[in-house]
Amino acid sequence: MKNFLSLADVTDLDALIQSGRDAKASPFADQQLGKNKTIGLIFFNSSLRTRLSTQKAAQNLGMNVMMMNVGQDSWGLEMEEGVLMNGDKAEHIREAAAVIGRYCDIIGIRAFAELNDREKDYREQVMNQFAKYARVPIVNLESATRHPLQSLADCITIEEAKATSSLIPARPKVVLTWLPHFKPLPQAVANSFCEWMNARARSGDVEFVVTHPEGYELAPEFVGDAPVIYNRAEAFAGADFIYGKNWSSYAQYGQVLTQDPSWAVTMDDMNRTNSGKFMHCLPVRRNLKVSDAVLDGPQSLVIEQAANREWSAQAVLKEILKTL
Amino acid sequence: MKNFLSLADVTDLDALIQSGRDAKASPFADQQLGKNKTIGLIFFNSSLRTRLSTQKAAQNLGMNVMMMNVGQDSWGLEMEEGVLMNGDKAEHIREAAAVIGRYCDIIGIRAFAELNDREKDYREQVMNQFAKYARVPIVNLESATRHPLQSLADCITIEEAKATSSLIPARPKVVLTWLPHFKPLPQAVANSFCEWMNARARSGDVEFVVTHPEGYELAPEFVGDAPVIYNRAEAFAGADFIYGKNWSSYAQYGQVLTQDPSWAVTMDDMNRTNSGKFMHCLPVRRNLKVSDAVLDGPQSLVIEQAANREWSAQAVLKEILKTL
Amino acid sequence: MKNFLSLADVTDLDALIQSGRDAKASPFADQQLGKNKTIGLIFFNSSLRTRLSTQKAAQNLGMNVMMMNVGQDSWGLEMEEGVLMNGDKAEHIREAAAVIGRYCDIIGIRAFAELNDREKDYREQVMNQFAKYARVPIVNLESATRHPLQSLADCITIEEAKATSSLIPARPKVVLTWLPHFKPLPQAVANSFCEWMNARARSGDVEFVVTHPEGYELAPEFVGDAPVIYNRAEAFAGADFIYGKNWSSYAQYGQVLTQDPSWAVTMDDMNRTNSGKFMHCLPVRRNLKVSDAVLDGPQSLVIEQAANREWSAQAVLKEILKTL
Repeated sequence: MKNFLSLADVTDLDALIQSGRDAKASPFADQQLGKNKTIGLIFFNSSLRTRLSTQKAAQNLGMNVMMMNVGQDSWGLEMEEGVLMNGDKAEHIREAAAVIGRYCDIIGIRAFAELNDREKDYREQVMNQFAKYARVPIVNLESATRHPLQSLADCITIEEAKATSSLIPARPKVVLTWLPHFKPLPQAVANSFCEWMNARARSGDVEFVVTHPEGYELAPEFVGDAPVIYNRAEAFAGADFIYGKNWSSYAQYGQVLTQDPSWAVTMDDMNRTNSGKFMHCLPVRRNLKVSDAVLDGPQSLVIEQAANREWSAQAVLKEILKTL
Repeated sequence: MKNFLSLADVTDLDALIQSGRDAKASPFADQQLGKNKTIGLIFFNSSLRTRLSTQKAAQNLGMNVMMMNVGQDSWGLEMEEGVLMNGDKAEHIREAAAVIGRYCDIIGIRAFAELNDREKDYREQVMNQFAKYARVPIVNLESATRHPLQSLADCITIEEAKATSSLIPARPKVVLTWLPHFKPLPQAVANSFCEWMNARARSGDVEFVVTHPEGYELAPEFVGDAPVIYNRAEAFAGADFIYGKNWSSYAQYGQVLTQDPSWAVTMDDMNRTNSGKFMHCLPVRRNLKVSDAVLDGPQSLVIEQAANREWSAQAVLKEILKTL
Repeated sequence: MKNFLSLADVTDLDALIQSGRDAKASPFADQQLGKNKTIGLIFFNSSLRTRLSTQKAAQNLGMNVMMMNVGQDSWGLEMEEGVLMNGDKAEHIREAAAVIGRYCDIIGIRAFAELNDREKDYREQVMNQFAKYARVPIVNLESATRHPLQSLADCITIEEAKATSSLIPARPKVVLTWLPHFKPLPQAVANSFCEWMNARARSGDVEFVVTHPEGYELAPEFVGDAPVIYNRAEAFAGADFIYGKNWSSYAQYGQVLTQDPSWAVTMDDMNRTNSGKFMHCLPVRRNLKVSDAVLDGPQSLVIEQAANREWSAQAVLKEILKTL
């Protein structure tokens, strides 16, 4: 694997999921692979799970880790080409990426959508410029439009649940449901989840449907052929996995069109499913998006799902290290 | 040792002090103990000594270290149970603690008193919720009411001084004295010092007295049976160790009742002692709390005391690692 | 080497440059040298290259690394002696330096000029107080008046270019040229470059000249015997290396006297040289100080120069480690 920017970089998804599960069983089995290799983790935005799980995964593989918060440890970076740099950005991404690429064997980048300019966000400028100028493999730690390490952890979590529960069928029904929130959030996690679940649906490993209020349609390149069911109760019926996430509107880009509290997931909703499991990428605002009872009950997979971030990162880093 | 939240977690204080002194003599003797173990150091507040000494101690033991500044590297955490999370906190401590506990073998937490609500601070919400939800050992890196790694370093420092100076008796007189400051500071260091010195007094290793202006009485559960002597000169007379610290009022919670400069420690004060040593946990505001002459003279133990933070952390981490 | 504060700490410059080039060829050859040694990297200011390259170099040598951003991870430090500390600084550098020196085998410090008080900046208070109180070797990660790790990387870059290009003479003409900028920047990089190039000129390894607008004269102790040519075209003629850098006025301390855009380096300027190479320490504001064409063309050495920061740091740390 050269880069890990999106699902397109994955040649064998089944093998990658299995590699994550193997890492979970034997975290230190590949410790020689990362010896004298360094990953730089570059954050343009805050992080908790990604920061800690990717660092941990790299250390499990014997790597050294260097962390940098852009605009805090260092200064802001200019992304536009050909500009006269007389503003508040002291360095261009061309130099920053090229230089960091000289100090690191692999670079992880987190750079969220700004939600002001859809075309700009969906161009994935930061991630693509790092990939262009750094000359070393780039790992997406959540970009403007995708969060593939999360999606891989989600796949691992679903396969793990299938393997450990006889109640879950071989081709479970997975429902992505929009959740209410007062702040505009990026579409990245939802986009990515669609991208990966569509692949899992194509391989016959899940049935995948999406439900959200009208106006919250995701970008067509992500939602793909997944059925969009506006009737939430209908979508939930018979579900084996409910995957909750808020996102802001793609059509009216970055807007909060509704905060309708009836879209928050409660035990009543879960009771309409096929003893379904609840998943969320975290952080989650309790009782705004999901009730305490759902998060704290036996149907919640959110902690295991977050724990699996370590193993999704380890599977990806292992694939990249093998090519260095 | 399962957690290190307070003195109550210590089964053999003499042995723990000796373990710290052994670590100082042979820092790398237990380097295999921490192999492939990771400590997460989570800071809700600024730190210098604790940040560096705990990291160093963990590395001496062969551990990996992950650091996170809450609200800077990540977002703020909600501590209250059952609330509708529609404010500025993006994640609940239930998830944060549980998830960090999945990435780390041990978690260190720093979370100061807010000094607004005494009952809330003394409930030790952050520390207790981490201990409840993380499912891995928790180390107190200074909580709302205690700073036990400091107190252990203080014990090590006193025993070391006793071992190296024939002037100090087997049962030295240790005086905790309040110092003036214009800002309201937590009671944690003073509370903890009382807790640990009372234990050392009970075992016959010190005589312990407390002096402060009226109104600065510490919580009864911490001051215990230690004599409180409001007459400062009387308290200092014959002292072998003067331990200076400012704290805000417990009775009028979080208030600065006086800034009386005559409570600052000067050479005149030290001359009233039994060639006493001066101790302070640092940081210290020079000439506001203690004079330059005291801090820079041969009676000052403050640098050695800070250096011993490495060995107190190493002794504690070693005890915890042995149980993993 | 006891400290690395300036060129004065270097006994054999040729050997140090060669050591950097050797480290580049075999990064992990001295990995046993740093085993169980810890470097603390203390930043009073932002950093990208220095932060990452010094950490990387230390890890190549097998060292542990602890990072701290002063005033962010910790509180601000008081630098003045004998003051009553009743302001916003919670700790004195005397204690901070002494304590950090107890946790670290080597300390790296970054502390920029404040550009308010020339005498104060040129006294190098922070660096000198750390050197005085820490009792362990101090490495200058850019101080008020110097950036010697940069200058060493510059020397490595020039020697490397000489070794790989038959067009560059044995005694190339190196030109330090001032660049325009709207913000007042420190003189440290330019000062240090003068100091090191003057030494290289004395040993016959380069010819060194300086060009800048009138009023931008550097301090006499740095510019030394280097010819200062105010006619920029004359200075550039026949140059083998153009080293661009902005700095604020030394005479009218910290002032921006002109932003004359004709001092920005363009291809027309480079065409006046002897097929000269372009160097800059980075970060560089594109099209304000240097044109895109210069930075992106084959004559640019800026990325290699930044990459060589790793090897200059490694050469210096190796020299220090050998004395521990």
